[in-house]
Amino acid sequence: MTQALEARIDQLESRFQFRDLVSDYCHGFDKRDLGRFMAIWWPDAVWEIGPPFGDFHGAPEISRAVTDILWPAWLQSSHYTTNLRVRFEGTDVAYGVCDVDCIGTTSDQQAQTVAATYDDRFERRDGVWKIAQHKVTVHHFSPLTGITLSAPK
Amino acid sequence: MTQALEARIDQLESRFQFRDLVSDYCHGFDKRDLGRFMAIWWPDAVWEIGPPFGDFHGAPEISRAVTDILWPAWLQSSHYTTNLRVRFEGTDVAYGVCDVDCIGTTSDQQAQTVAATYDDRFERRDGVWKIAQHKVTVHHFSPLTGITLSAPK
Amino acid sequence: MTQALEARIDQLESRFQFRDLVSDYCHGFDKRDLGRFMAIWWPDAVWEIGPPFGDFHGAPEISRAVTDILWPAWLQSSHYTTNLRVRFEGTDVAYGVCDVDCIGTTSDQQAQTVAATYDDRFERRDGVWKIAQHKVTVHHFSPLTGITLSAPK
Repeated sequence: MTQALEARIDQLESRFQFRDLVSDYCHGFDKRDLGRFMAIWWPDAVWEIGPPFGDFHGAPEISRAVTDILWPAWLQSSHYTTNLRVRFEGTDVAYGVCDVDCIGTTSDQQAQTVAATYDDRFERRDGVWKIAQHKVTVHHFSPLTGITLSAPK
Repeated sequence: MTQALEARIDQLESRFQFRDLVSDYCHGFDKRDLGRFMAIWWPDAVWEIGPPFGDFHGAPEISRAVTDILWPAWLQSSHYTTNLRVRFEGTDVAYGVCDVDCIGTTSDQQAQTVAATYDDRFERRDGVWKIAQHKVTVHHFSPLTGITLSAPK
Repeated sequence: MTQALEARIDQLESRFQFRDLVSDYCHGFDKRDLGRFMAIWWPDAVWEIGPPFGDFHGAPEISRAVTDILWPAWLQSSHYTTNLRVRFEGTDVAYGVCDVDCIGTTSDQQAQTVAATYDDRFERRDGVWKIAQHKVTVHHFSPLTGITLSAPK
C-alpha cells in the first residue's frame, strides 16, 4: 500500500520537475544564465531548433549554440511556456509538449513575436530528470512592425 | 492515516488533470487534433463562447462548432493558458478559472490578439475528470494592425 | 515511512499553493477583486514594483497602491504568469521566480505590452502560505503603437 502511494508521489514530483526543466530553459536563456540553461540537458542531448538556427547535438554544441548563435541573435527575449502536457513511458522516460510565446528584440533592433511548440523527451538517470531531446516547431516568427520594446527609465 | 494521505494525493493528481484538460483544449484546438479536443468534454458538456460565436450544448454540437465554425474562422491560432486557480466542491466536482492569451490570424488574413478568461466546471464520473461546462469571457479581441504572422522558411 | 511520505505530499501541496498565490495576484489585480488581491499578502509584506510606481510596505500601503495608483493607471489589464520556479529554504520559507506577460490599456487610452519577472518570498505562518515579499523586474513596458484593444460587441 505504502509502496503504491510512493509511486504516485514520485510521479507527481516528476511532473513538477518537468515543469522546472522547461522553466529553467526560459530563465536560463532569457536571463543569460549559462549554468542554469546547461543544467537542464543530458550530456548527449539533442536541441532541434530547425531553421533558421539549425540542430545541435551534445552539451558542448548546445552551449556554443546559445553563447555564439542564439544570444548574439537576440538583444533581449522573454519566453513564456504554457500548456505542458506530459505522457509517461514507464518510470524513467516521459514526453512533454508545451507551447511557448516569445517576445523580444533581435540584433537588428527589430521587435519580434514568436509562437512555437516544444516537444521534449525527459529521461531519468541515477534518479535525476533532465532533457534528452528538445524539438522546437515554430508557428510564426514575425516582426512587430512599428513597435519598440524598452524598459522604463 | 494512509487513507488521509491517499485523499491528499488524489487531490494533487486531480489538480494536474485539470491542468491537462485545459492544456488539451489548446493543443487540440490549435493543432487541429479533433480527437484530443473532444476527449476533454463530457457528452452533455456546454461550451459558452458568447459573441460573436455563440454557445454550444453537447459533444456533437461542440464538435461541429469547432470543425464548421471555429477552425474555418482561424487560419492559425496559439492559445496560452495561465493562472489556473481551482476550487474543489466535494471530491468529484471542481471549478477552475484561468486566463488565456491568444494570438493568431483570422480567415480574412488579419493577425489578432485575444485576452480572455476561462471558467470551467470539472466533473469526475467513474473515476475520470472531464469538462462539464466551459465559459469564455473575452476581455479584448483586436486586430494587430500592420502585423503579419508567418512561419520561418 | 508514512512521515516521510507526508513531508513529500506537503511539499507538493505547497508548490500548488505558490502557484495559487501568483495566480491570485493576477486574478485579483486584473478583475479588480480587492479581497482576492489582498488575501495573498502577509500584513508586513513588501511590494517592490520599482519605477515608475515605487515600493509599498505593509498591507494597508499595498491596498492603497492598488486602488489609488495602479488601478487608475490601467483601464484594463491581463497578466499571464509562467515559468514558476521554486526553491525551498527549510519547510516554511520558499523563493519563487516567474515571468509575466502583460497586455492592457493605460489611462491615456494607449495599448501596452509589458514583460517582467516576479521574485517572491513565500512564508508559511500558522500553516498558511502567503507572500512576504514580491519584487518586480520590468524587461520592457512599451506602447503597442497603432493597436487598440477592445472587447467584441
